[in-house]
Amino acid sequence: MGDFPRFVRINEEGPREGFQIEKGPIPTARKIELIDSLSKTGLKQIQVVSFVNPKAVPGMADAEEVVKGIKRAPGVRYTGLWLNEKGLQRAISSGKLDVTGSISLTASERFLQRNQNRTLAENLKAQNATIATFKLNNIAVERASIMAAFGCNFEGDIANSRILELCERIFELAAAHDLNIKILSLADTMAWATPLSIRRVVGAVREKYPHLEIALHLHDTRGMGIANAYAGLEMGVAIFDAAVAGLGGCPFAGHRAAAGNVCTEDLVFMCEEMGINTGVNLDALIESARLAEDVVGHPLPGAVMKGGTLVKLREKLAVA
Amino acid sequence: MGDFPRFVRINEEGPREGFQIEKGPIPTARKIELIDSLSKTGLKQIQVVSFVNPKAVPGMADAEEVVKGIKRAPGVRYTGLWLNEKGLQRAISSGKLDVTGSISLTASERFLQRNQNRTLAENLKAQNATIATFKLNNIAVERASIMAAFGCNFEGDIANSRILELCERIFELAAAHDLNIKILSLADTMAWATPLSIRRVVGAVREKYPHLEIALHLHDTRGMGIANAYAGLEMGVAIFDAAVAGLGGCPFAGHRAAAGNVCTEDLVFMCEEMGINTGVNLDALIESARLAEDVVGHPLPGAVMKGGTLVKLREKLAVA
Repeated sequence: MGDFPRFVRINEEGPREGFQIEKGPIPTARKIELIDSLSKTGLKQIQVVSFVNPKAVPGMADAEEVVKGIKRAPGVRYTGLWLNEKGLQRAISSGKLDVTGSISLTASERFLQRNQNRTLAENLKAQNATIATFKLNNIAVERASIMAAFGCNFEGDIANSRILELCERIFELAAAHDLNIKILSLADTMAWATPLSIRRVVGAVREKYPHLEIALHLHDTRGMGIANAYAGLEMGVAIFDAAVAGLGGCPFAGHRAAAGNVCTEDLVFMCEEMGINTGVNLDALIESARLAEDVVGHPLPGAVMKGGTLVKLREKLAVA
Repeated sequence: MGDFPRFVRINEEGPREGFQIEKGPIPTARKIELIDSLSKTGLKQIQVVSFVNPKAVPGMADAEEVVKGIKRAPGVRYTGLWLNEKGLQRAISSGKLDVTGSISLTASERFLQRNQNRTLAENLKAQNATIATFKLNNIAVERASIMAAFGCNFEGDIANSRILELCERIFELAAAHDLNIKILSLADTMAWATPLSIRRVVGAVREKYPHLEIALHLHDTRGMGIANAYAGLEMGVAIFDAAVAGLGGCPFAGHRAAAGNVCTEDLVFMCEEMGINTGVNLDALIESARLAEDVVGHPLPGAVMKGGTLVKLREKLAVA
């Protein structure tokens, strides 16, 4: 079946995405409980917190305590998110995270302004400074990301030319700092993507940069998350961000009832049913998804945790 | 973009799928209100009721009254569902429906037994009798359908060979009754399909019957509905059943918290955003989806009705 990858790596972002957007205060111990549960599922990377202004995102005020409390499982990378120098310093100081460097650009200047209060020029300058800090701290920078790559609630559709222009900026920065950027993450931050625009943007980037590995960060606000992931798989994309139970959303994206990220266990289900290995134990992950619902105290959008897996049904039928 | 159809026909099945599975009694007038609302969206076909045993499906006991009450809009076909001769007679007697004939087989014999209390042989016999009734009443039979075509909770995976075998039975029946079957509907009754099995089954049928138009009836119980529809679109499938707001499910399929059919407005959103014409006014359809939530009295799974359309956002941005 053509370009499907044989193995997919899923970066779990549920704790970070979920805790940052939930209204009710979630006890630190329960956050840690969910992360520890996710550590036992076979996921190889879990983004556990964001180091952002606690006034803007009160749900992340306990980021350091969460990091301190988790039980690190061998073979799992624990990451954090930050949007500026101060956040990066907090991530480094937490002492327990796998801090990796990244060049972070945004396709929509209006969203950049709203989300980080920066122009593109200011952001490029900030990226320069951040890269210098990464180097000072011996942190490798092998990944770049473009937010709002498929459209923006404040700027509209994003043209391929804009994405390719940002890729140029990324490789200029990389050249200036002697970095080897291996992965480009394209984020559908405000859920504008359809499978066709996934094809369009991934195709355009791949045509110009055939050796760059592409990762997708997908949201499900308009119900396209899994279909967009499938379009990515068809193009050989093998790295996806996802959130257990469909936790999350973006607090700055201006949605009233924003659905969260593409749901990890639904994505794992699709991949495994199509013969694409994820390394994840789906039953264990569903347990984590149910725990996530319990932790946030309301139903979450994940489907497979309610509809059930097919593996168990097949086993039952084989016995019957 | 290859095989995408330019126009997609969506058969709305929300009223039938939804009213048959909802627990609470829904007043007949409110059912009619929803159907009349759907009539104004540009949808060209609406399945409004099923004529089934009211003891088994109490939510459909008022089927005749619902049919009597709706305001037929010009250019819209109003259909009903039935599973046996008695149901068909009720549909004909209702006097107001577009009764079209269909040959209905099921890929899973165990499900057939459970759902209709028949063996495949008994079902073929029953189809023979039903076709005779269609002919007696001058009802054209141009469509065949295969339920549980992608897998079954009681029988497991369904092989291509099984589907092709059922296609042979269909064309034998058609030959015996001098029918011209133009459309084959493949139903993922219990949500076993993935985009890959859509490709597999649709591909196998198309290879053997290149002139047969294929329709897909998809459920979203495991979150694959829209991705499966996309896989169908990629193969040129241009007819889909769907349910407004994601109403529905199958009361006999044995799910505890079964999600419903693929959501009409999410499917319309995907198609229109990808340049595939549906003839449906998405804003009007979203109004119907919100009405559906009000009628059933609980949240429904549709995403676009919560996440919002992009057309309006683009308009706002163009003005700003």
